[in-house]
Amino acid sequence: MTVLRASRGAVVLLAVLFAAPAWPAEPEPSAVDPAVLARIRDAALASDWAYQRLSDLTDKIGPRLSGSPQAEAAVQQVAAALRGAGLTVTLQPAKVPHWVRGEERAELVEYPDRPAGLTQQLRLTTLGGSVATPKGGLTAPVLVVHSFDDLTAHAAEAKGKIVLFDRAFDQELANNGQAMAAYGQAVAYRVKGASAAARVGAVASLIRSVGGADFRLPHTGVMKYEDDAPKIPTAALSAEDAMLVARLAAQGRVEMHLTLSPQTLPDADSHNVLADLPGSDKADEIVLVSGHLDSWDLAQGAIDDGAGVTAAMGAVQVLKSLGLQARRTIRVVAWMNEENGSGGSKAYFEANKDKLAQQIAVIESDSGAGRPLGLHAAVTPDSVEKLSAITAALQPIGATAIERRDGEVGADIAPLQEAGIPGFAPMVDTREYFFYHHTAADTLDKVKPENLRRQVAVMAVLAYYLAEMPEPLPRVAVKK
Amino acid sequence: MTVLRASRGAVVLLAVLFAAPAWPAEPEPSAVDPAVLARIRDAALASDWAYQRLSDLTDKIGPRLSGSPQAEAAVQQVAAALRGAGLTVTLQPAKVPHWVRGEERAELVEYPDRPAGLTQQLRLTTLGGSVATPKGGLTAPVLVVHSFDDLTAHAAEAKGKIVLFDRAFDQELANNGQAMAAYGQAVAYRVKGASAAARVGAVASLIRSVGGADFRLPHTGVMKYEDDAPKIPTAALSAEDAMLVARLAAQGRVEMHLTLSPQTLPDADSHNVLADLPGSDKADEIVLVSGHLDSWDLAQGAIDDGAGVTAAMGAVQVLKSLGLQARRTIRVVAWMNEENGSGGSKAYFEANKDKLAQQIAVIESDSGAGRPLGLHAAVTPDSVEKLSAITAALQPIGATAIERRDGEVGADIAPLQEAGIPGFAPMVDTREYFFYHHTAADTLDKVKPENLRRQVAVMAVLAYYLAEMPEPLPRVAVKK
Repeated sequence: MTVLRASRGAVVLLAVLFAAPAWPAEPEPSAVDPAVLARIRDAALASDWAYQRLSDLTDKIGPRLSGSPQAEAAVQQVAAALRGAGLTVTLQPAKVPHWVRGEERAELVEYPDRPAGLTQQLRLTTLGGSVATPKGGLTAPVLVVHSFDDLTAHAAEAKGKIVLFDRAFDQELANNGQAMAAYGQAVAYRVKGASAAARVGAVASLIRSVGGADFRLPHTGVMKYEDDAPKIPTAALSAEDAMLVARLAAQGRVEMHLTLSPQTLPDADSHNVLADLPGSDKADEIVLVSGHLDSWDLAQGAIDDGAGVTAAMGAVQVLKSLGLQARRTIRVVAWMNEENGSGGSKAYFEANKDKLAQQIAVIESDSGAGRPLGLHAAVTPDSVEKLSAITAALQPIGATAIERRDGEVGADIAPLQEAGIPGFAPMVDTREYFFYHHTAADTLDKVKPENLRRQVAVMAVLAYYLAEMPEPLPRVAVKK
Repeated sequence: MTVLRASRGAVVLLAVLFAAPAWPAEPEPSAVDPAVLARIRDAALASDWAYQRLSDLTDKIGPRLSGSPQAEAAVQQVAAALRGAGLTVTLQPAKVPHWVRGEERAELVEYPDRPAGLTQQLRLTTLGGSVATPKGGLTAPVLVVHSFDDLTAHAAEAKGKIVLFDRAFDQELANNGQAMAAYGQAVAYRVKGASAAARVGAVASLIRSVGGADFRLPHTGVMKYEDDAPKIPTAALSAEDAMLVARLAAQGRVEMHLTLSPQTLPDADSHNVLADLPGSDKADEIVLVSGHLDSWDLAQGAIDDGAGVTAAMGAVQVLKSLGLQARRTIRVVAWMNEENGSGGSKAYFEANKDKLAQQIAVIESDSGAGRPLGLHAAVTPDSVEKLSAITAALQPIGATAIERRDGEVGADIAPLQEAGIPGFAPMVDTREYFFYHHTAADTLDKVKPENLRRQVAVMAVLAYYLAEMPEPLPRVAVKK
């Protein structure tokens, strides 16, 4: 057992359970038959159904940003697939933002020792939700800062400038299993950088892309304007271009011409896709297993979150194909709008807020398709040992770690977790997740079929167990 | 000693000489003072002059495609730097192609199970020298083949189609020190694919990018039209997009809308930059040390070949700064137009074809900025042992391997090698070279300053030794 610092600052317990297969002779305290869990695992490992659904989603549709025709096609495709698997499907209406990228260009038009007449093109991508530059772009000097404190220290110089937050993603931390902590450090600049810069008079705001690797990929993602600051346009430079600008700015005045033409259209009507595998004697109690259907617009969204949503679908398809019926209902949710607004998450919560007692446990997979290692579990400390039958079943695939968390484990299930419902997420290898996250390179080839099968096994065993155990896990307080 | 198969099919000898420092008491057969070679090495390792020049070239100018204003700025910048180092500089006129990229877009407009109204954008880059599509682009079905033989087998289906050569770069080979062999296998489709496809009636030709890694980067590079085939437009898809098209085409009809608008302008006037460090008693004999100044237009060209050209410059700057004068003249050449026409190489050969006897040895660095491991040497078998003083001097930095080759070791020096002149290239770690080669990600951050210093040490010790040794190495026949 090891105590680690979690990404949200909470202290978590990492309980790696080297669980042996359960004693066949002794009765299980969980009263869930270990042989059934083993059958579920093996069926998941033998099935390519989830990978086929992932191929359909990525290759036949591609990017699925909320409000786009592609997102709508994904709703229809996934609903049809779940119906095809024999489940009862409901489309749950959700209002979602409808933001469209448009043109994105940046050019260095002045810098130290610039040969006369030459300029340099940069690679960047507009952050989701950004307003546009004036038509034809804007030209302004660049102020490079490395943190919010650094911006405060140079506040007097920011007026009329383009502020670049040159904050590197800590890949070394990610390499050590702490990718989410690394993300947490850097993403604050993506979300809050524009308003911080606007507050001191900047005309635009840029970040160094939030992600590892070195392939001149800009990483998009959502940003938020705060009420006390003017809305200024904002984008992410590739890490290489951020470093270039920082090197030049260290030598003298750098001026940039920046053109971003995104549009925020009226909110669109969209849907969560819900599919129920009805329970037996406790059918009104629900175990939710989920991933999100929307993606950013730069790529197929295979790891974010095609893999997660199709693993959740696959988990229930496996149970159905085995003819298994748990005591509780298992509900697949393919969330709409995780990336930029949580419209789907809000709609589900709103529709269920008066019957939360029926929601027994919530599972979301949204950390990619790396090798599954176990579970993140936002449960009471006493609940951890009750999960040992799950890790015992998953021991042959090495997914035996349980990391107990005091915080949210999935953006879409967060409102349900905040209401006290135990929350779960597969723990997967995320060392390379932020190489691709929110970039053009998040494509199907990044998903290894065998890891997706393993993830289906984790989700299926977990969901079935939670739906079958005699008493639900106790409610738990999570930190926001 | 190990016998390996070389990239050009010739048999080469890999002589890894674990040379100990030379016996101080015994006279060196080379009559080149080992203490001087050690001084050169140490001065190179202590100097950041080359890295500063590389920074200037990449950060202050950026991409330097032949015929562009940036290429001209690079000529002026490098000439000034070499003059600043105290060398006599000559600009040698060279005619070069002037090709301009323009727009490049591809979209899948039909494929199996396509949701009505949806299309998919692909990432690609036009190959250097390609003609344009008709204005507004062309739309045609895609024929995916995996080799020239496969194209021949499907020749009857090619008429009116866009042929995609889906040939993967063999990164495993590259990981084993055989990057150039992997490149040699795949690059044939880049160079000859368009004419092969045109010959069987295709309207355009695409390749899977020639390079490793998985970051949705298209790799550009030169292509050549053959006289017996119509000129059709040609481009490289990112590996991910090539795989997507191949997956879809395996399921049914795929149609693509392709827009490429490159222009071939009239040949431009440009220059090689030559700088001489005059010799003493054999000043009319020349040892040439070089890299190329031009780059592709997608990035800064830091590894291809900013590192090589600045290492060559740095090698002579080190000798000059030490006040060393070898017996022969050492000439730096910063070649123009290695990438798409060899105009600089041709101009130098033309200017020197009547005095080739004066050209004693030629060195070119054009394999990137990886850790230097030794030398590629296109010399007679008997010459290898005469190089032991060089590898002895480089033993402390681990650059002791000598791989004798029967073929060319640098594109610009190839005509001189074909005339029998011994040729050399630094041997460097190329395992990651084709991650970046000809992509937007070939940027300064890919060059480790310590590896560039080591490469300067290799080039400086090698050049000085060849210029100082009593008798030149014998002429050698190289295979084209």
